[in-house]
Amino acid sequence: VAGTVKGPGVLVLRSQSAHPLDPLGPTEIAVAIATVRAAGATPEVRDGMRFVEVVLNEPDKNVVALADAYFFPPYQPTLYRPKAKGGAIYPLQLPPRQARLVVYNKRTNETSIWLVELSEVHATARGGHHRGKVLSSVVVPDVQPPMDAMEYAECEAVVKEYPPFVEAMKKRGIEDMDLVMVDPWCVGYYGEEDSPSRRLGRPLVFCRTESDCPLENGYARPVEGIHVLVDMRQMQVIEFEDRNFVPLPPPDPLRNYTAAASRGGVDRTDIKPLLITQPEGPSFRVNGHAVEWQKWNFRVGFTPREGLVIHTVAYDDGSRGRRSVAHRLSFVEMVVPYGDPHDPHYRKNAFDAGEDGLGRNAHSLKRGCDCLGHIKYFDAHFTNFLGGVETIENCVCMHEEDHGILWKHQDWRTGMTEVRRSRRLTVSFFCTVANYEYGFFWHFYQDGHIEAEVKLTGILSLGALKADENRRQGTVIAPGLYAPVHQHFFVARLDMAVDCNPGEGLNQVVEVNMKVEEPGPENPHNNAFYAEETLLRSELQAQRDCNALSHRHWIVRNTRTFNRTGQLTGYKLMPGSNCLPLAGPDAKFLRRAAFLNHNLWVTEYKRDECFPGGEFPNQNPRVGEGLPTWAKQDRKLEETDIVLWYVFGVTHVPRLEDWPVMPVEHVGFNLLPHGFFNCSPAVDVPPSEAAVEEVGIKEAPAKGVGPTDSIQPTLLSKL
Amino acid sequence: VAGTVKGPGVLVLRSQSAHPLDPLGPTEIAVAIATVRAAGATPEVRDGMRFVEVVLNEPDKNVVALADAYFFPPYQPTLYRPKAKGGAIYPLQLPPRQARLVVYNKRTNETSIWLVELSEVHATARGGHHRGKVLSSVVVPDVQPPMDAMEYAECEAVVKEYPPFVEAMKKRGIEDMDLVMVDPWCVGYYGEEDSPSRRLGRPLVFCRTESDCPLENGYARPVEGIHVLVDMRQMQVIEFEDRNFVPLPPPDPLRNYTAAASRGGVDRTDIKPLLITQPEGPSFRVNGHAVEWQKWNFRVGFTPREGLVIHTVAYDDGSRGRRSVAHRLSFVEMVVPYGDPHDPHYRKNAFDAGEDGLGRNAHSLKRGCDCLGHIKYFDAHFTNFLGGVETIENCVCMHEEDHGILWKHQDWRTGMTEVRRSRRLTVSFFCTVANYEYGFFWHFYQDGHIEAEVKLTGILSLGALKADENRRQGTVIAPGLYAPVHQHFFVARLDMAVDCNPGEGLNQVVEVNMKVEEPGPENPHNNAFYAEETLLRSELQAQRDCNALSHRHWIVRNTRTFNRTGQLTGYKLMPGSNCLPLAGPDAKFLRRAAFLNHNLWVTEYKRDECFPGGEFPNQNPRVGEGLPTWAKQDRKLEETDIVLWYVFGVTHVPRLEDWPVMPVEHVGFNLLPHGFFNCSPAVDVPPSEAAVEEVGIKEAPAKGVGPTDSIQPTLLSKL
Ligand SMILES: [Co+2]
Ligand SMILES: [Co+2]
Repeated sequence: VAGTVKGPGVLVLRSQSAHPLDPLGPTEIAVAIATVRAAGATPEVRDGMRFVEVVLNEPDKNVVALADAYFFPPYQPTLYRPKAKGGAIYPLQLPPRQARLVVYNKRTNETSIWLVELSEVHATARGGHHRGKVLSSVVVPDVQPPMDAMEYAECEAVVKEYPPFVEAMKKRGIEDMDLVMVDPWCVGYYGEEDSPSRRLGRPLVFCRTESDCPLENGYARPVEGIHVLVDMRQMQVIEFEDRNFVPLPPPDPLRNYTAAASRGGVDRTDIKPLLITQPEGPSFRVNGHAVEWQKWNFRVGFTPREGLVIHTVAYDDGSRGRRSVAHRLSFVEMVVPYGDPHDPHYRKNAFDAGEDGLGRNAHSLKRGCDCLGHIKYFDAHFTNFLGGVETIENCVCMHEEDHGILWKHQDWRTGMTEVRRSRRLTVSFFCTVANYEYGFFWHFYQDGHIEAEVKLTGILSLGALKADENRRQGTVIAPGLYAPVHQHFFVARLDMAVDCNPGEGLNQVVEVNMKVEEPGPENPHNNAFYAEETLLRSELQAQRDCNALSHRHWIVRNTRTFNRTGQLTGYKLMPGSNCLPLAGPDAKFLRRAAFLNHNLWVTEYKRDECFPGGEFPNQNPRVGEGLPTWAKQDRKLEETDIVLWYVFGVTHVPRLEDWPVMPVEHVGFNLLPHGFFNCSPAVDVPPSEAAVEEVGIKEAPAKGVGPTDSIQPTLLSKL
Repeated sequence: VAGTVKGPGVLVLRSQSAHPLDPLGPTEIAVAIATVRAAGATPEVRDGMRFVEVVLNEPDKNVVALADAYFFPPYQPTLYRPKAKGGAIYPLQLPPRQARLVVYNKRTNETSIWLVELSEVHATARGGHHRGKVLSSVVVPDVQPPMDAMEYAECEAVVKEYPPFVEAMKKRGIEDMDLVMVDPWCVGYYGEEDSPSRRLGRPLVFCRTESDCPLENGYARPVEGIHVLVDMRQMQVIEFEDRNFVPLPPPDPLRNYTAAASRGGVDRTDIKPLLITQPEGPSFRVNGHAVEWQKWNFRVGFTPREGLVIHTVAYDDGSRGRRSVAHRLSFVEMVVPYGDPHDPHYRKNAFDAGEDGLGRNAHSLKRGCDCLGHIKYFDAHFTNFLGGVETIENCVCMHEEDHGILWKHQDWRTGMTEVRRSRRLTVSFFCTVANYEYGFFWHFYQDGHIEAEVKLTGILSLGALKADENRRQGTVIAPGLYAPVHQHFFVARLDMAVDCNPGEGLNQVVEVNMKVEEPGPENPHNNAFYAEETLLRSELQAQRDCNALSHRHWIVRNTRTFNRTGQLTGYKLMPGSNCLPLAGPDAKFLRRAAFLNHNLWVTEYKRDECFPGGEFPNQNPRVGEGLPTWAKQDRKLEETDIVLWYVFGVTHVPRLEDWPVMPVEHVGFNLLPHGFFNCSPAVDVPPSEAAVEEVGIKEAPAKGVGPTDSIQPTLLSKL
């Protein structure tokens, strides 16, 4: 796709085919790994290298501006404003792309970060060739990088061969070790014994029955009371204790979720097909990772830790051109603290992004099952632990959805009605972390708003109880089976750029609270209230919590761009339902998750400030690393490049109805234009054509309760 | 549809064709009106009669039980339990249906309530014949019934002919009175001058431009500063004052929402058709007003005040039979208080149900525009003010929707995945009250939960400002045009019947709050929390507000039915986003709307306790009538027939983007099974068939940004 393109008045050589924000391709990943491996000092070092993460080292924002201005559609020469007056600068080429690698040396327990420059040669040839150059490598002290699926598998094997473990299983009546499931969990940090000088796993143990069903729900039989600590580096059991004999719960007849494994193979049979078709194709246009849809445009990115990333979100606002809303949107961390103080549950507070990786655990999606309509899938490429390149096909799903009525008004005098249907563009991925699944969705709407939505489903993390045991920190789901209360927190990092070119520091954040006016002559009927705006002037002032009673929300405003009534243009973050941690202020997990103590944080953009608990939360001994530490600098926010961190959660009191697999629960928030546009941008959505009234539907009243198979509707939503 | 049906062992004559909960049909309405009219004492009385409302007088719950047990599907003989032992009672027939009429006598300013018994003769003949008998008539003192559209139209005409009004218009440059819009609003109650001894309207005035567009948005030019008070009974202007000369705002070029009237007729053109088809028909079955869908069954009702009513909601739970969830669900009131203390805005606090009627103002819906998929419409029948019968065709829409993923789990060891799609059944209607529209939706899901959703759209209620004027209680939308802040409150009345036969008083309500455990030896890591349950023992204790921080919710439990782990079966009310009135405690509108002071009220069921502000909020001089007064009785709630009143609202700080027509905003709540089932009822939903991978989509990467018209997907979601 490389070639030449006409800049304003001069011919510019396009030097590379990938946009600076495109995720690394498989070749780039392989080259980066080969480069780092070749740079290892000794064969021992090279042999000990494990590849935790290889990602694009995202370029400075001005490079993105440059690319968008000259090299990639949509061409927006105005995006690149030369700093000096006296003639524009026409760049000859983009800087080479860089890879960033997190390497764990298994021999030395050393974690290092490498930057590799990727040069593309023979760029015009199909695929090109890459070669790499190490730019830097830094050892990061006192950290443990995320766990890898290969380590999990090895750990399971090692534990299952450990004789005292086998003995403990026997004591519980388990002879067939093939039935045993060992799910390693990270240990967190509770004291010196959890120090990152060792790489530790603390497995939870479950046991399937003798069922021959490959999809049996093994989480239905927790093996309780066994303490196992595994050195994941040496891959050996280093502590073992059979602490508490809890009998295996009886196999719950309701534990399985497939028809074959339960209910005698019988599913409900009365759900009729519902087809969604787009005979003229989708309304979006895709070019590589660039997407255009209904005046929206953005780029799809992906990282092993965050999964889906939305880059450079802008709205094509007619004569006002392509107006930026955000530079980068993603989910950067998750924490799932459990409320049971007993072992092993108190240790459960998974950081599913930082300890595991949302992207690395993503699903390959299936048309018709995971997604309906005309789907555009994006693949995702990763390194595995050993440095092999792996691909998840159909990892990110993008499609359109009808979303009901967009707006409507009926004139009561004339009965004349105008109604428009809402279409949304949905970009999403789904992942599994052990027993639980999460779906992350970004919805773009025709009225200019963006919705972030998380869907929670999967299998509860259970414990077993003795016959006489009862714990108020959970719900008994079946005899002997107990589901502790817990919370799921998500952190969205919103690198905003409202009406800003990339990197332009012209945003600020205003908090809005509704205030009731005092009684008095100006308020004789006591009905008056108003929206009070408070500029969040610095980072310490910008640690805020939701407040439903004051209708609290936050507006990111451009400091210099006005709408037609003289307001500064802005986008508001409107919280959905939310909560704060239900834990004491000295809770151990809050050492690492201090960013959960507020729903909103605002920081000045810095390129290395990406993860709210620091890059390596696993066994992290440092208190408040990441967001709370950065914010202590109390940098000024009155006019700068703003990053919003929105922390939101759900409290989960398990229900019997969440078993054996939990129906999807939703949580999220909205970004809405607030004085960004001069009027509703949805006003020019055309009306739908009324469907032809099919003969038979209204005229054929059902004569009795019975199927209405004979009715064959033709349903048109032609626009 | 009348006939005979075999009861258990005995032949029972079915005496009527309408289910006791079916809304009145057109004939029944006509008969009821004729009966009442004929009963008028003198020709003058008869001539003065205006018919505000004619509805089914809903029968006692035991009659519903009887009907469901013997006369109408689904037959559930167990539902009718004879009180005395020694042999079942087999009823010979259902009691005759009754109509309840609200009649306003225009000559005497008297409001009366009539009960008319409707006897059906020749029941087997097509249509049957009805005759009516007056059972009772009661004059209700000191009230004003809701306003009628005919009165609004008359009022507009009268005001526009009133010479001082014409003069005031001229003063503002308006010569053509055809351009003037007079929207009468109810006056509320601010003091003795608003007493219901007079029937008052206080119009707001707007003025269109000379545009020839029939859909011009006239609300864009408020005519400010004129005080008009109309006696709606005498239909004459009784007060007039040109109080404050505010120039007409200039015609806003962005005021119109149709292409013809704005934007030079140009709409966006790049939205491709999206078709939803159900080639085998819908999955629901309808018999009259009875609906069965995916184990749910209920009846669709409708009243002029509430609009859609959902009766007798039950879930078919296999061997446990048809299990009741609720007896009656509806929206019974709305209040929209504005936060501007200035005249006329302080008077704006519309009770859209009690002063106007959500059902009477409902839309006739259009397939393809308002609703997609296979639609079943229900018509609605009303009286008009003069006693004529009117029908809104296609008033209630019912259809199925795909709702994304229902549940999913992927085994990390094997990669094996189970995923199910969620289908929901949606029953809804839409209405207009003056400038605003509201859609009321009830969604039924396969996982046993019910969602209530309100969609808000339509046109902002605006004021005009002088050039130098600025008010902090609103947003300037365009030069001289100002939208005051306001709130929209909705009251859902949930007459619950969890595992109860109709009228059986075996429910209670438990409030759940999350509690953080104290630090100590039982909680060494400070992570512990639990769900604390508090039984709401009586009505005064059961006035509660939302609390997001404690994850507060409420569970309606059956007091005698247990699930498999020994919990009482229940359904929980999970709030969505919510608020409380942003007004001083002495706000005048709270006299009539004291029920807004709490988000949740629980009362013991009483058949006449239907509307939280009383039946006649219009000009109501009594403080706290309705819910607050009933609850003062502090009736015991430990085991009774429970009614939940959930009050929820949105605070609306108008945005430029809400103009000229507001994109839909959503608000609502969920009713979720909580230990009602023994496990997830969604577990037996069958998998979708994976769509056939169409050739061309993955293999044809877009070569550039350009339409992908050539791709013609076949999208299957076959189940
Ligand atoms: Co959960
Ligand atoms: Co509003």
